[in-house]
Amino acid sequence: MRTVQLVDDSCVRMINQRLLPREEVWLELTDYRQVAGCICDLTVRGAPAIGVAAAFGLVLAAKELAERAGRGETELLDLATYLGRLETAAEELRRTRPTAVNLFWAIDRMMLAARAHAPKAFAPNRGEPLNGAPAEMVAFLAAEAQKMADEDVDVNRRLGHYGQQLIRDGDSLLTHCNAGALATVDYGTALGVFRAAHNAGKRIHVYVDETRPVLQGARLTAWEMLKEGIPATLITDNMAGHFMRLGGVQAVFVGADRMCANGDFANKIGTYGVAVLAREHGIPFYPVVPTSTIDLSLGSGEAIPIEERKPDEVTHPGGVPLAPEGIKVANPAFDVTPHKYITGIVTEKGVIYPPFDVNLRRLFQDA
Amino acid sequence: MRTVQLVDDSCVRMINQRLLPREEVWLELTDYRQVAGCICDLTVRGAPAIGVAAAFGLVLAAKELAERAGRGETELLDLATYLGRLETAAEELRRTRPTAVNLFWAIDRMMLAARAHAPKAFAPNRGEPLNGAPAEMVAFLAAEAQKMADEDVDVNRRLGHYGQQLIRDGDSLLTHCNAGALATVDYGTALGVFRAAHNAGKRIHVYVDETRPVLQGARLTAWEMLKEGIPATLITDNMAGHFMRLGGVQAVFVGADRMCANGDFANKIGTYGVAVLAREHGIPFYPVVPTSTIDLSLGSGEAIPIEERKPDEVTHPGGVPLAPEGIKVANPAFDVTPHKYITGIVTEKGVIYPPFDVNLRRLFQDA
Repeated sequence: MRTVQLVDDSCVRMINQRLLPREEVWLELTDYRQVAGCICDLTVRGAPAIGVAAAFGLVLAAKELAERAGRGETELLDLATYLGRLETAAEELRRTRPTAVNLFWAIDRMMLAARAHAPKAFAPNRGEPLNGAPAEMVAFLAAEAQKMADEDVDVNRRLGHYGQQLIRDGDSLLTHCNAGALATVDYGTALGVFRAAHNAGKRIHVYVDETRPVLQGARLTAWEMLKEGIPATLITDNMAGHFMRLGGVQAVFVGADRMCANGDFANKIGTYGVAVLAREHGIPFYPVVPTSTIDLSLGSGEAIPIEERKPDEVTHPGGVPLAPEGIKVANPAFDVTPHKYITGIVTEKGVIYPPFDVNLRRLFQDA
Repeated sequence: MRTVQLVDDSCVRMINQRLLPREEVWLELTDYRQVAGCICDLTVRGAPAIGVAAAFGLVLAAKELAERAGRGETELLDLATYLGRLETAAEELRRTRPTAVNLFWAIDRMMLAARAHAPKAFAPNRGEPLNGAPAEMVAFLAAEAQKMADEDVDVNRRLGHYGQQLIRDGDSLLTHCNAGALATVDYGTALGVFRAAHNAGKRIHVYVDETRPVLQGARLTAWEMLKEGIPATLITDNMAGHFMRLGGVQAVFVGADRMCANGDFANKIGTYGVAVLAREHGIPFYPVVPTSTIDLSLGSGEAIPIEERKPDEVTHPGGVPLAPEGIKVANPAFDVTPHKYITGIVTEKGVIYPPFDVNLRRLFQDA
C-alpha cells in the first residue's frame, strides 16, 4: 500500500494518519497549500513520507503555474519569473516542519532538477511554442517526484534486507513511534526491518511504545503490526525500561528524522530515553536511516532544530482535556540521541559501525 | 486538606481522584465494601492514602458488626466469632491491590490492635453489659485509625523537613506520578518535599511527568502544584531524558509503594526509567519513603508482587479508544528500581545513604 501517491500529475492522494486506526480515510489534494497544511497537522508524518509528499506538492504548484499561464498570465512564460514562483511554493512547503531533513532534501532535489531543466523548456528557439513550457515542467517534475517515491520504496526494502540480518529467530524487539509504511511511501524503515525478518521466516515479537503525545505507536505501528501479522505488544513509553530489565528485549530499532555527520540523530521525542535504557541493559540499539535522512552539513546533534508543538497534544490525550487549566506545558516533538548510544546504523548500503563520522562520510563518497 | 477522612466513626469521606482535576467530588462511604471498591478502581490511590483508607474501612466493618449485634445477632458477642468476622472484612480490604505495602501494614496494625483490645472489651465480668463490646470496639478502632491518619500527616511533614534540605535555591526538579496530598492523608511525600522547599522560600521549578497510563502526574500532581503556587511544567514521560540531557533537572524526588530490606523499591511504572536516566546524567535520585512503606520481610525487589491492570487504561487514553482493536497490551502498574540507582532515601527519621541494607535496618532498631 502506497500511503502517499501522485495521481495524473494533478492530485496528491494520501491516507489521513490522524484518523487511523479508527477510520481509513483517503484525501485527494489538488493544491500544494493543502499538502503543506497536511504536513503541518500530521495528516501525513514520518520523515521519508513528508519528503515525498512535499515533492508531490511541488508538482501541484507547477500544475497551478501551468494553468495560470494557460489562462493568460504571460509573465509566467518568463524563465526567472516562473522559477521565482515555484521557489515561493517550495518555501511554503519548507516552512511546515523544521526537524526532519528529508523534507528539505526532497524540496532541494526537486528545485535543483527544476532549475536544471527549465532553461531547456523555456528556450525560445527550440521549435515548439513557448507557452507549452509550464506544462512540460509539470510532466518533468511529476516524473522526478515519482522517481523519488519509487526510490524510497526500493531504499526501504534494502534497509529491511540489511537490518533483518541483525535479528535472530525468536528475538523480542522494541520500537518507538512509527517508522513504518505510513512514515514512508511504503514498507517502512524500522518496521521494514521487522517485515523483512518476519518474511524471512524468523519468529519475532515487537514491543510497541505508544509514543505520547500523538500516539503514533499505539495508533499506527500497532495497526501495521496487526495488518502484517507480526506478534506485538503495546506498552506505554514508560514501560520500556521495565521490560528491558526483565530481559524481554533483545534489540531496539527506530527511525530517524535527521542524522548528523557524527551519527547524532533526531527522532521522535522519547527515542533518547530508549537509547539510554538500551545501553544500560546491554541491548543493541539501531537507527534505520536512509541516506536521504543524513545531513552531513551538521557536525553534531546540537545543531538540529527541534520543533516545539502545541500544548494541547499533551494536555488533551485522545482530544479530552485531562490536565488542569493553566498548567505550563513543554512539547518538543523530537529529541537528539548522541551517537555514543548507537550500536550500528542500518542504511540502504549496509550496516555501518563506529567510527560513525568516518563511515557516514564514506557512504556518500562511495555513491 | 485531608483527602481521606473518618466522620463520626460511621462514614469515610474521600475526594474522588478519578474525576480530578475537572471535578472536585467528595464521596461519603458507609460500607467497608465501598471502600474496597474505591481502592480497586483508583478513586483513592497512593500508598499511604490507601493504607489509611483501609484502616477507616475496618472501622466501618466494626460499625456494621456492632449494628448487627444490636439487632440481635448474638453470636457476634462471642469474642472469637467477632474477630473472625472482622478478619473477613480485613481480608477483603487486603485483596484490593497487591503492590503497595502500606495497605497490608495498616490493616495488620488495625487487626493487631483489635486482637489486643477485644479480650478486654468482651471480658464477661467487667461490670458492664457484654452487648456494649462491639460498640466499644468501634470507638477503639476509630481512635486507632484516626491516630494513624494523624501520624501520616506528621510523618509527611518530617519527610518534607529532611527532604527539602537536599534542594538548593533555584533548583529545577522532576517527579513521576503523584506522591502528594492526594496520595497520602495530607501534604505528601515527594510533593511534601517540594512544598517544604517552597515554604522555606527556595525558588524551585518542577517537571511533572504525566505518568501514563492513568495520568496521575497530569491530573493530580499538576493540580497540586497549581494550587500550591509552585512553578511547574507538565511533560510526557518520554521527555524526561531530553530535559535531563539539556541540564534542566537538578534532582529527582519520587514516592514509593514498597521498599525492600536492601533498598530496592516498587513505585509507579516508569520510575525505573527515570532512575536510570538520572544516573546517566549524574542527577541525584531520591525516593521519599515513610517507614510504613518499608517491608523488611522482603530481601530484594524481585519478591515484590507487581499488579497487572486492565488493558483499556493503555488503549483508551482519556477514555477514548485510540489503539486498534485486537492489539495485545501489557499494563504492569509498577516497576522495581534496584537500590544501586538511589542516591539517598528520605525517611521521617532523616535521609539515609548506602549501604542501604544496614541503614534501613538501623532505622527500625532506633525506633
